Amino acid sequence: MTYKELYQQILRKKSYLCVGLDTDIRKIPAHLLRTPDPIFEFNKQIIDATADFCVSYKPNIAFYEALGPKGWESLQKTIEYIPKEHLSIADAKRGDIGNTSGLYARTFFDPSSSGLDFDSVTVAPYMGSDSVKPFLEFENKWVILLALTSNPGSADFQRLNVGNASLFEEVLKTSQTWAGSDRIMYVVGATQASEFEKIRQIIPDHFLLVPGVGAQGGNLEEVSRFGMNTSCGLLVNASRSIIYAGNDYDFAQKAKQEASALQQEMEIYLDKYCN
Amino acid sequence: MTYKELYQQILRKKSYLCVGLDTDIRKIPAHLLRTPDPIFEFNKQIIDATADFCVSYKPNIAFYEALGPKGWESLQKTIEYIPKEHLSIADAKRGDIGNTSGLYARTFFDPSSSGLDFDSVTVAPYMGSDSVKPFLEFENKWVILLALTSNPGSADFQRLNVGNASLFEEVLKTSQTWAGSDRIMYVVGATQASEFEKIRQIIPDHFLLVPGVGAQGGNLEEVSRFGMNTSCGLLVNASRSIIYAGNDYDFAQKAKQEASALQQEMEIYLDKYCN
Repeated sequence: MTYKELYQQILRKKSYLCVGLDTDIRKIPAHLLRTPDPIFEFNKQIIDATADFCVSYKPNIAFYEALGPKGWESLQKTIEYIPKEHLSIADAKRGDIGNTSGLYARTFFDPSSSGLDFDSVTVAPYMGSDSVKPFLEFENKWVILLALTSNPGSADFQRLNVGNASLFEEVLKTSQTWAGSDRIMYVVGATQASEFEKIRQIIPDHFLLVPGVGAQGGNLEEVSRFGMNTSCGLLVNASRSIIYAGNDYDFAQKAKQEASALQQEMEIYLDKYCN
Repeated sequence: MTYKELYQQILRKKSYLCVGLDTDIRKIPAHLLRTPDPIFEFNKQIIDATADFCVSYKPNIAFYEALGPKGWESLQKTIEYIPKEHLSIADAKRGDIGNTSGLYARTFFDPSSSGLDFDSVTVAPYMGSDSVKPFLEFENKWVILLALTSNPGSADFQRLNVGNASLFEEVLKTSQTWAGSDRIMYVVGATQASEFEKIRQIIPDHFLLVPGVGAQGGNLEEVSRFGMNTSCGLLVNASRSIIYAGNDYDFAQKAKQEASALQQEMEIYLDKYCN
């Protein structure tokens, strides 16, 4: 998927919502446990219910891996089921020496190898350029690089001062030399105006994947006001607040209501701030 | 496995060798491709041939993931086959928000969930304390935290100055507050004396997992001379130089010769520097 295709989808749906498929076997409605593949059955119903209101799906790979080979089978079926117009994100936070990152890239981008064909993957920057570049060698695929995450531990290293900037700003700057806004997005868990100002000075054009609206507590209006650029430039993720909105036979209907409510809010902010 | 048990195994075998199981379906001998599970068959023969000369095995998870569910099945069989006296390391370089890191911990440490029962897992520090702590909640399991890696990209961020220290030194210092040398080891790709001196000032007691002897080009004597402490404190990894020493019917025999040669060298350095 290209930058332009993503932006056009956002305009068409009036939404920049990403639905996080953090599908936990311990949390899904009990009646699904009687189906042959409860994880996939849950995802399928969530996707059917929410596809009109979001532009992206983000399976969190840990939830599938934790179930071993059968979790990977559920993941394969899920990625095949996600409509092609949606940006699919493997939230995997991988990163290793070049040789190994090349294999992680095959894992998520080469269906002839792993059975998975994601549009993008989240990558950790700690190991530097040669740990990220193998992911960029796959045409039409995206790297979503961790910059500033939304968890308390982000203060431990990401916000340390490195010369005149924070480490996460240094990550933004250095990675500019690896590829452009047509190939890299960033995970940015910022909510404050001052932070977004600094970030948008460094990367005015890039898409930002913003976690933490909903269960992690971010504020959608602030994120939109301070983070948006002229091509929207935002994908805002909500996981638990949507997929676990209900816990009974009507769970998909409840998820639809939550996704729809977020889309309606986003429609307002697109009108107001995307310019 | 405890710190003491690991040290005793090192003394008994006169070896601190870790064999990296970077098993690539494209690189293993052709005759194995006719077996039902070529990856496992390769690993089994490598383990049989090298077990007496090493104290640890380190499957690199990317190589298994890249093959999808059948890769995970090969990994499960491999981890079951590794003798219990060897420290098993899931080289996965994971790290995510607490909730998700908890699931990665289950992936590698909880066989009732994933079928895998590793002794340790490599973890990336970028997301800070709450991304690492869920791994430490599993009794008798180890976190091996990335500090200084051996790839060229380590210069991009790990060696940046943060106040008076490099980022990787800051990682060493900060993580001291999370757990002690009985629960955390570090990936340290250093080879220079001056670097090891600084590192050993911060973490005199911890075990270091040193990559890059062999194909990645480190020097075993320097690593041993500058990195060893009174409990050895080193696990030195070799992957490709051992497992791909041969590429025919005698590949396991060739691997054995390489592992044995490294063990004999290590025996000398243990006598010389472990004091």
